[in-house]
Amino acid sequence: MERIIPRQVDNTTLKENFPYLFTEHYQDEFPKADVQAVNKGLLEPMYDLMDRGGKRWRPCLGLAFAECFGRDAKKFEDDIYYACGLTEIVHNGSLMADDIEDRSQLRRGLPCTYLKYGLDYAVNASTLMYYIPIAQINRFIPDPALQSRLTTIYNQEMVNLHIGQNWDITWHHGGAGGISMCPTEDQYVQMVLNKTSVLPRMCLRFLSEILQLKPSQRSAVIKYIETLGAAFQIQDDIIAVTSEQYAKERGVGEDIREGKRSLMVIHSLNLNNTTKAKRLNDILNMQTDDISLLREAIDILISNGSVDYAKNRAATMMAQAWSELERQIPECKAKGDVEALSNYLIDRDI
Amino acid sequence: MERIIPRQVDNTTLKENFPYLFTEHYQDEFPKADVQAVNKGLLEPMYDLMDRGGKRWRPCLGLAFAECFGRDAKKFEDDIYYACGLTEIVHNGSLMADDIEDRSQLRRGLPCTYLKYGLDYAVNASTLMYYIPIAQINRFIPDPALQSRLTTIYNQEMVNLHIGQNWDITWHHGGAGGISMCPTEDQYVQMVLNKTSVLPRMCLRFLSEILQLKPSQRSAVIKYIETLGAAFQIQDDIIAVTSEQYAKERGVGEDIREGKRSLMVIHSLNLNNTTKAKRLNDILNMQTDDISLLREAIDILISNGSVDYAKNRAATMMAQAWSELERQIPECKAKGDVEALSNYLIDRDI
Repeated sequence: MERIIPRQVDNTTLKENFPYLFTEHYQDEFPKADVQAVNKGLLEPMYDLMDRGGKRWRPCLGLAFAECFGRDAKKFEDDIYYACGLTEIVHNGSLMADDIEDRSQLRRGLPCTYLKYGLDYAVNASTLMYYIPIAQINRFIPDPALQSRLTTIYNQEMVNLHIGQNWDITWHHGGAGGISMCPTEDQYVQMVLNKTSVLPRMCLRFLSEILQLKPSQRSAVIKYIETLGAAFQIQDDIIAVTSEQYAKERGVGEDIREGKRSLMVIHSLNLNNTTKAKRLNDILNMQTDDISLLREAIDILISNGSVDYAKNRAATMMAQAWSELERQIPECKAKGDVEALSNYLIDRDI
Repeated sequence: MERIIPRQVDNTTLKENFPYLFTEHYQDEFPKADVQAVNKGLLEPMYDLMDRGGKRWRPCLGLAFAECFGRDAKKFEDDIYYACGLTEIVHNGSLMADDIEDRSQLRRGLPCTYLKYGLDYAVNASTLMYYIPIAQINRFIPDPALQSRLTTIYNQEMVNLHIGQNWDITWHHGGAGGISMCPTEDQYVQMVLNKTSVLPRMCLRFLSEILQLKPSQRSAVIKYIETLGAAFQIQDDIIAVTSEQYAKERGVGEDIREGKRSLMVIHSLNLNNTTKAKRLNDILNMQTDDISLLREAIDILISNGSVDYAKNRAATMMAQAWSELERQIPECKAKGDVEALSNYLIDRDI
């Protein structure tokens, strides 16, 4: 990732990395740019977040796929590293923006960027994390036609990401116009496919182009990854209401407090047990901090079987996508890695 | 602009405008997306801001340049409208983000988007205003090679925009690391060239490619527009401290309150009248609302001759850039329009 975004710059490396920052007409007038401002205001907040780690499953899965389709894991080429590194950087930029939107307190156990560095720096740096990687494409992808195809994919997926995010935000607020509105299960899955699935899908769409996969391979890979993204999100939502470790780190029932319409919630609200559904809906609309109310909502989800329902739906979707993909990947060690990583992602406790 | 971003969508037009939102594998499962959320959460805040108007000088200047270089003003083609419309939409997206970063109250006389619609909607919609226009490029620019050149320009300029913005933010805070730091005049101009000049420059870089300008024409046009952007910003800063109408609308000395290191401020701080410079610096660092202190700072800028200095510097830069450009444009009505609009922009009172 440090090859895509430098960790620090001086006057020489600022110009090497961002030559277009020095306009053709005035560049000789700028022997000394304020590089400290770039280091402190942009690069430090970016790496502060990225260095906290996270699961990094998106780039890991990307590398495993590259190996499945013939690249040598001992010596991946620039194009593969670029696709995987870009995905992880953009993912971190989107987390920085998400935390502002949700007014979250902690990210990966530490104060969110906008709290640690200030709202102005965080808004600006998060957007720049979207632009630097794609602006650097010519350093990693020499073929102009391929650059162009990847950039088109990138721009389309970034539109998807923000439309998906808007659905999520709007439903948190109880729907457009403030009326209490619950999405259908299909609408929920459509949101997730255009939110959680976007970045891993972008990574594998990049790799499909780079590795020149056959149409049947490409199709199975994309179906697989977007299903995995959806199943990952469903599992994330399950963890957020049932995991004790999660509750210790983030507080009980964070998603309930935010009014999130997860697949479990939609399932429960659609059951015919009117009293429970009404009560669940009321608690969601309160956006309350009261732990006994939050626990009551969680109990409704469990006793209604909505947690099991969500778990089964995710498992069924994944099984079907995997069976289609499996036929397209030659037997190899990396194939086992893909399967193991996927199983972990939809079956983890935290 | 409504051809680039629709004002409203239904299920049919959502799919027509954003076909990539409906993934190949799951699209048949989504007969009904939540279009109300898209209309209320995204398109309404975007058009609420854009419908407030503003000067719209960037697209106007773009159209005048297109006419200067041979296009028929009675019937501009799609490519010209696209370059100018994209610029204005991205400009509005950047204002939405700026207002969040500066915690402003009013934009064009009405509450800022993040105050009217909520921080989460505003962060998300502002970024989407950057992505929709460029993702729609194939509808307006049929030639793939030209699409690719414009997209490269776009991504580079968006990096510039956010690095320039970071310099501005950092100097408001008194420099990186919180030490009281004042940029040099050159650093100030470099910031402005990568902030205020970015979007008009992007528009004319697009047009230079579309109109296939000769290198000498292209060079003079770009030098002219980035100089105009810088001069426009210098004039904006002058208005912010000297215009009574501005003070009525936005309060006295908004820029002083924010601690902004404008060209006038830098000039005053660099003079050898130590007492006045120290006093000015102190008031800037207070980030105070006290009107008598704000007026005192403004008086220092005027009595030091810093306002006149800034005005002269802007006029000199512009005169030189115009004399180079003038030779490149054939005599025509639109040439007079360009000159008149430019003169207005650096000589206005509000």
